[in-house]
Amino acid sequence: MGTYESYAGKINRKLMKKVHIVNVAAGRAPADLVLKNASYVNVFSNKICHGDIAITKGLFVGIGQYSGPNEVDMSGKLVLPGFLDSHIHLESSLVTPWEFAKAVLPHGTTTVVTDPHEIANVMGTDGIEYMLQATEGLPVDVRFMLPSCVPATPVDESGADLDYRDIDSFYDHPRVQGLAEMMNFPGVIQADKDVLEKIVAAQAHHKKIDGHAPNLEGNDLNAYVTAGVYSDHECSSAQDAIAKLELGQFIMIREGTAARNLDALLPLLTPEYADRCMFCCDDKHPSDLLEKGHIDYIVRRAIQKGVDPIIAVKVASHNAARYYALNNRGAIAPGYLADFVVIDNFRDFHIESVYKKGVVMYETNEVKQFQIPEVSSYLVERAHNTFHVPSLTEKDFEDVRPRGIIGMVPGEIITQDLGYAAEINPAKDILKIAVVERHKNTRHIGIGYLKGYGLKEGAVATSISHDSHNIIAVGTNDKDLAAAVNRVVENNGGIVVLKDGQIQGEVVLAIAGLMSDAPLTQVNQALEEAKKQAFALGVCQDVDPFMTLSFMSLPVIPTLRLTTRGILDVISQKYI
Amino acid sequence: MGTYESYAGKINRKLMKKVHIVNVAAGRAPADLVLKNASYVNVFSNKICHGDIAITKGLFVGIGQYSGPNEVDMSGKLVLPGFLDSHIHLESSLVTPWEFAKAVLPHGTTTVVTDPHEIANVMGTDGIEYMLQATEGLPVDVRFMLPSCVPATPVDESGADLDYRDIDSFYDHPRVQGLAEMMNFPGVIQADKDVLEKIVAAQAHHKKIDGHAPNLEGNDLNAYVTAGVYSDHECSSAQDAIAKLELGQFIMIREGTAARNLDALLPLLTPEYADRCMFCCDDKHPSDLLEKGHIDYIVRRAIQKGVDPIIAVKVASHNAARYYALNNRGAIAPGYLADFVVIDNFRDFHIESVYKKGVVMYETNEVKQFQIPEVSSYLVERAHNTFHVPSLTEKDFEDVRPRGIIGMVPGEIITQDLGYAAEINPAKDILKIAVVERHKNTRHIGIGYLKGYGLKEGAVATSISHDSHNIIAVGTNDKDLAAAVNRVVENNGGIVVLKDGQIQGEVVLAIAGLMSDAPLTQVNQALEEAKKQAFALGVCQDVDPFMTLSFMSLPVIPTLRLTTRGILDVISQKYI
Repeated sequence: MGTYESYAGKINRKLMKKVHIVNVAAGRAPADLVLKNASYVNVFSNKICHGDIAITKGLFVGIGQYSGPNEVDMSGKLVLPGFLDSHIHLESSLVTPWEFAKAVLPHGTTTVVTDPHEIANVMGTDGIEYMLQATEGLPVDVRFMLPSCVPATPVDESGADLDYRDIDSFYDHPRVQGLAEMMNFPGVIQADKDVLEKIVAAQAHHKKIDGHAPNLEGNDLNAYVTAGVYSDHECSSAQDAIAKLELGQFIMIREGTAARNLDALLPLLTPEYADRCMFCCDDKHPSDLLEKGHIDYIVRRAIQKGVDPIIAVKVASHNAARYYALNNRGAIAPGYLADFVVIDNFRDFHIESVYKKGVVMYETNEVKQFQIPEVSSYLVERAHNTFHVPSLTEKDFEDVRPRGIIGMVPGEIITQDLGYAAEINPAKDILKIAVVERHKNTRHIGIGYLKGYGLKEGAVATSISHDSHNIIAVGTNDKDLAAAVNRVVENNGGIVVLKDGQIQGEVVLAIAGLMSDAPLTQVNQALEEAKKQAFALGVCQDVDPFMTLSFMSLPVIPTLRLTTRGILDVISQKYI
Repeated sequence: MGTYESYAGKINRKLMKKVHIVNVAAGRAPADLVLKNASYVNVFSNKICHGDIAITKGLFVGIGQYSGPNEVDMSGKLVLPGFLDSHIHLESSLVTPWEFAKAVLPHGTTTVVTDPHEIANVMGTDGIEYMLQATEGLPVDVRFMLPSCVPATPVDESGADLDYRDIDSFYDHPRVQGLAEMMNFPGVIQADKDVLEKIVAAQAHHKKIDGHAPNLEGNDLNAYVTAGVYSDHECSSAQDAIAKLELGQFIMIREGTAARNLDALLPLLTPEYADRCMFCCDDKHPSDLLEKGHIDYIVRRAIQKGVDPIIAVKVASHNAARYYALNNRGAIAPGYLADFVVIDNFRDFHIESVYKKGVVMYETNEVKQFQIPEVSSYLVERAHNTFHVPSLTEKDFEDVRPRGIIGMVPGEIITQDLGYAAEINPAKDILKIAVVERHKNTRHIGIGYLKGYGLKEGAVATSISHDSHNIIAVGTNDKDLAAAVNRVVENNGGIVVLKDGQIQGEVVLAIAGLMSDAPLTQVNQALEEAKKQAFALGVCQDVDPFMTLSFMSLPVIPTLRLTTRGILDVISQKYI
């Protein structure tokens, strides 16, 4: 896109802008906007500072005494740098990136760093490209870390298999910051060449490499860090976090929908450690986003727990920016992007307005209109056509052999090995579970049994199933199982709750089977209604009917999982 | 230099190294070197940590329990990251970069960031290239900031005139970190396009831009910072430094030969501000280097003044590395360059050994041998042939008109306007001063009078004269003036003290008229002897006979200066 620009032309264009901002800063030209009498968090001196803040061409240009035709009085308020989410999978919001942007702007988020891991497992590099195009020019700046583990494991049948060469050209994209969470830490520690060469290539491009290594320690941790993994967001204890921090890793304190580590990691939010910390959500589901908020929720909670508010704000803004070498943001200072949040005070922490590049994007409870990014027609069509499964019948789910029983554990995503079953028995909570390969028309259908889900009638199916996103379904009879899967395919993806062939609730996720084309509130409403219907059909109250189900196919968490090839013992990595 | 390496080949080469270091870190292969039972400064947690430190292929690869065929017991000692000088002009040492390296290795310096401003004023881009080649592969890693102000002012007749296009290709060099001190701060504030486009180009290359703006404040400082100047090393008061730090600038605390700001800036070496600070020397003369040391001297002094030793060490190492995005050094942690310093303890701070990339380079008072970089014959010849001046006679220094008198001020480099004189009068300390253009054979010779220098007989001449490095000479008679200048030219540069045509002392600086081909101790000896001879000829004891003289031609410091075109009033920028 865009016309060719010579280097000399680029320098001259930037020079013209530079001359203007210097003229404004020096007081020779009026600022586009002046925040009069502002009190703001200074992340350099760790103080509240005061002054008029001049903004021009999207940048803070000066702090001191300024005036102009467009002034906003900031007396009695507090101005903070815009917040950054240092690690999120945007797909977890179930909506398009622009719907996500609308949802987080009121919460002060002005930059997020996303790992398009989910969509890449479905669409490969087309998925990465789709997300890049779908985030271009949004008022929340979306930066990318390239998925490092597609597929997540060798036993996964995903839509793509990406080695370092596949993702290499994306490092040239101006919004790509590096290589995303290196979940295959055993591969790193074992010096697996396919794994290490992804790190080597990211380093060759002078990019960051994020980590994912819960409770790794000792020389294994040394090996993981020396390989070039610069951060971790999987710490659930201060001890684990400090051990990693002392070896040089940056710590992303995660507080999202599925995993919540803030309370355990509060000891890090002290002058001793905080400079090496930032905040992230990892996953953020619709209701959580609508009800709790985003990074602001973490900041608020940290302050309530006794963290120095200036430290909390700095961790939420400056530290993440500096980690990612996004050196033009994360502070209120001359030359920085005018991304900022206006609140009443630290105690109430009510967000009154949010500005992106000097333009108000949220004010008086309203998000301002913005241009929706244009995604190429090829990618739109590709994203809406990711199901390659023939119409199924109950015969496809029939099975004469006994199969393993996956035992769900309330409130956890680990499972138990509960032996074998040969048939469905809803009275004993023995349900049939199936994973239907949906990327390449292989007709692979893995079948097993599930206990602890509670369904008494009908079936539930979803195309969100980590990390390959095949269709996972659970049912009380083969006919409803087939109907539920067929409906997911008919919708080009999503969640279906069905009884006796009748749809009880559904969420259409036609973008790669992961995201909806509808607004967030609508998606949330459909999702909550579908959940209600799933509970009505008997799903246990302590189970999230769709999220927990989506993890039953993730072949890295013990004990049993179901893949497209059958029930897998995660520890032995053998099918049983 | 070097064979062509494909991208795939580069990845594979780096992969092989990566596999090996991961194997060592994981304990599957022995380390090249193990520092047993080490106590070390952890710059991430701000603590002294303990463990065995494994080193392989020039990198720290693990900290914990390691053993190997090559172990060094570190019990009772303290291991620190190697020190960085964040801003120096290597030419100020008067020796070649390899002689400089030999001198600073015993002081724990493992990286310096140099601005080849002096040689660039003589040789233009050839001077930058000369220094790059002369520093390649040294055991002190030499990084470059490209000179931003050549010539220093429009009235200077220097050897080159560099705009952004001239220096642009150097940004691709792997050891170039950015644009050096932007001394022309009035040009920045006035939005001078030639000045700003240098900043714009450095930013287009994602490089750092260093500052130089003593006591700039208010909206002028806002303009300077918003233009994109990220640091300052000219702060001589904590108030000035904090004002700049609060606007986002990093502060280089300077303690060198000419300017010493450490004591005034001690309030910055606190948890509140220290993360935005680093150390630098700016200029470091031979005797100072030999007698006091380098960055270690600053650290030692800071500790003596009550600064937390861990803060002092972190400022001396990690902070400078992070500012310059030299993210592979400045810490003792897996994956970092094994650049380190072994001391006895913080109180005595005696440096026992220094390692660069895991190899001991200084131990038991001895610097290890290393390969001297090879400079291309073109550049060697070019550097030794920078004088283009015909042989002069006393007639060239005769002048019938009265000329301004520059009044030296003891202990300062500012001067006074002491009216006019028409002839030399040593009894009244009225000496003739001359600046002889030496780059382009223009035959321009600026003549004036000097008071406060004290010379009673003979003449002194030097080819170090800031910043154009023409020949500056002061004499009691025209004949000795001519002889002294002729001798400097004959030597291809240097310092000469002469009486009645007889050389009393001299330092040959045949590399661009700035640096010697001789060892540091020899240069220092010649310099001290020449100084002694200058004092013997009457130079006042409170004047440095050569250094102070070298500033008499710098047309930016009030009141009067002498250029190749005559006596200049610095305030009005007019010749008088």
